[in-house]
Amino acid sequence: MCLKLNTKFLEKFISKEDYLKLEKKVKSVFKALHLKTGLGNEFLGWLDLPENYDKKEISEINKISEELKLSTEVLIVIGVGGSYLGSKACIEFLKSQNYNLSKKDTPDIFFVGNNLSADYINEILKICKNKNVSISVISKSGNTLEVLTVFSIFKKFLEKKYNKKELKKRIFIITSDNSNKLRNLAFKESYRIFYIPKDIGGRYSVLTPAGLFPIAVCGGNVNLILGGAKKARKDFLKNNLNNLCNKYAVIRNIMYRKGEIIEILVGYEPCLFSLFEWWKQLFAESEGKNQKGLFPSSCIFTTDLHSLGQYIQDGPKILFETNLIIKKTKTNKYKKISDLNKKAFEATILAHSSDGVPNIILNLNNNSEFELGYLIYFFQKSCAISGYLLDINPFDQPGVKKYKDNLNNTMILN
Amino acid sequence: MCLKLNTKFLEKFISKEDYLKLEKKVKSVFKALHLKTGLGNEFLGWLDLPENYDKKEISEINKISEELKLSTEVLIVIGVGGSYLGSKACIEFLKSQNYNLSKKDTPDIFFVGNNLSADYINEILKICKNKNVSISVISKSGNTLEVLTVFSIFKKFLEKKYNKKELKKRIFIITSDNSNKLRNLAFKESYRIFYIPKDIGGRYSVLTPAGLFPIAVCGGNVNLILGGAKKARKDFLKNNLNNLCNKYAVIRNIMYRKGEIIEILVGYEPCLFSLFEWWKQLFAESEGKNQKGLFPSSCIFTTDLHSLGQYIQDGPKILFETNLIIKKTKTNKYKKISDLNKKAFEATILAHSSDGVPNIILNLNNNSEFELGYLIYFFQKSCAISGYLLDINPFDQPGVKKYKDNLNNTMILN
Repeated sequence: MCLKLNTKFLEKFISKEDYLKLEKKVKSVFKALHLKTGLGNEFLGWLDLPENYDKKEISEINKISEELKLSTEVLIVIGVGGSYLGSKACIEFLKSQNYNLSKKDTPDIFFVGNNLSADYINEILKICKNKNVSISVISKSGNTLEVLTVFSIFKKFLEKKYNKKELKKRIFIITSDNSNKLRNLAFKESYRIFYIPKDIGGRYSVLTPAGLFPIAVCGGNVNLILGGAKKARKDFLKNNLNNLCNKYAVIRNIMYRKGEIIEILVGYEPCLFSLFEWWKQLFAESEGKNQKGLFPSSCIFTTDLHSLGQYIQDGPKILFETNLIIKKTKTNKYKKISDLNKKAFEATILAHSSDGVPNIILNLNNNSEFELGYLIYFFQKSCAISGYLLDINPFDQPGVKKYKDNLNNTMILN
Repeated sequence: MCLKLNTKFLEKFISKEDYLKLEKKVKSVFKALHLKTGLGNEFLGWLDLPENYDKKEISEINKISEELKLSTEVLIVIGVGGSYLGSKACIEFLKSQNYNLSKKDTPDIFFVGNNLSADYINEILKICKNKNVSISVISKSGNTLEVLTVFSIFKKFLEKKYNKKELKKRIFIITSDNSNKLRNLAFKESYRIFYIPKDIGGRYSVLTPAGLFPIAVCGGNVNLILGGAKKARKDFLKNNLNNLCNKYAVIRNIMYRKGEIIEILVGYEPCLFSLFEWWKQLFAESEGKNQKGLFPSSCIFTTDLHSLGQYIQDGPKILFETNLIIKKTKTNKYKKISDLNKKAFEATILAHSSDGVPNIILNLNNNSEFELGYLIYFFQKSCAISGYLLDINPFDQPGVKKYKDNLNNTMILN
């Protein structure tokens, strides 16, 4: 198994009875998920995606990635939420947070359109000034305000550098296959399009071209990622409490009921940072509704031991920790440091749990593409089950609509 | 005033009586703070630091910064917790999160020793391979495990590049003036030392050389930062509820008592990211004890509107938001984007508060050094008062000690 769940440090906080009380319910929601009879069942495309994905599209993505190695020094990814967090998470996990500063034969990558900061856009444009640039615009709806606004700026930037023919080789649209601003523009200008399946929501879209295109361009092996997800799909088909997805979902639900309202995802490698941001989006947006849901937070230790660590140890008993531990580092060097890192983990979990903080451990073998695909699928399926255990629809986001509506109203009024 | 506090969106959540109930207490703790009769009163050096700081040391730092422009392509800062978050926060706030990738006449900067990841260290060393490197080692105690371990690796790296004489120009020790491993080494090898005053704790040390040395090397005007802090010190001397430090501390305390257990610091500029990490450390480590304290979290919108946004809008009513709004962007370009950013803020605060999420707004004029110094002092003083309102010692960190003790025990056992 790529992934193991260790509940040793949970035993004094959860009894067998706690699990048994939820066994019937979790089995029933797992069944509803697979029979597609639950809430939001129009968005379950991710469930069988590792088997059903468009093989032709993936080889096309791989082909373009090879071409961009030669033509492109910087790839600009324009997207927000699920349309950028997934690829950012994977690239940092596989390569590093310092990917852009490291030596490599693949383009630098910058993520824009995830904010409306003039300073930020100005900086990125300055960095791109004398470079060969390609753009990938990602929006499932094809109408996202931030994305379209920022795209118009970067499109102008590219139009000054390249002619129409060259632009067609440098602009890639990733959206859904229905009439929307982005798709219509792509048709008009003959830009290359990749599709996000209609039955997969933004935060579940990392294994579609939305996530895989930027990953491939940055040198990630997307076939191996999909291979890992395929293995996870198979491993997590059995409907019992040994299924790690069921087990993690049940533990989260028990914690929630016991008043541990914050879940902190903890890691000891900086390359996990954006993966944890992706995880926060997945769970916060899936579960935070009807005044329910755990508040997802994250820490990278040891750095945050000198920060939130104090609160976790001695603050209110309102949280639990999920430790994502990667067994094997990428490098073989600095073994003394790696040993110390392991010891820091052991010292911390002992300290925190001795003061009444429940802890679970997810053990992942290494930082490879296969393990990453496996882990992604695990979290996605766990999240769906966890949402169903709360009796909410894990696949909508009604709360995000409210600020968007207000924004559109303001814009009309002004 | 550099900084304004707007409580318009708080009115329906807090009554005049709520404030009045705490008026006596806040006045009494404010008095205790200034008379140095409260808990942790041996660590109040930060209170008058903007007046009392060592002017000679600061001009020495400015002088060295100019020299390093010529000799150094990369500055490595080795520190954890308060010994790196402050300078990282300020550099990103003043310059950008993409500082290293931007054109400039100052060195790149990398922060190490804040984790025990072999992969991370390996990456940074690879990036430094053919560059001219200087090192700043920062630890108040002079004995911090991560820092000393990682320093030994980078020291070896430098020793291969430079002779003894050159090393003395490239290694800078920042620690406290008492016998400790770092200071003793610096004496032995004649490295340049800057001191962190004994009466200023790590998380309050950003306006000492611990924070100011890396900021100066990266081109920040530290005299202006200290000038802003000096202005804040003067502005926040009056003991009444109009004092913003008292007011913010009182609001936090009322929120805490009403069960809004999570405070989310919200910003709309990516350059605020590390400042918010600094803020999280300041408050989490100061207040998270005796099972008390707000859980500090942070969001950068609009990106996190497509993530935690859903939870904030529709999740459990256990949180409030503090919005740090910067009025003027650095660039004059992309005015349409800046206008949209403002509208997104207005749309969001309306949406969130209409669904029962209390919101306050801190308005800061701009991203200059002066405003930054002002803001830092504001948060530091507010945090001290807020901690005293909880009847805890805001200046110790007993919980961090536990994992450290465990770690030292494991290391002896193995």
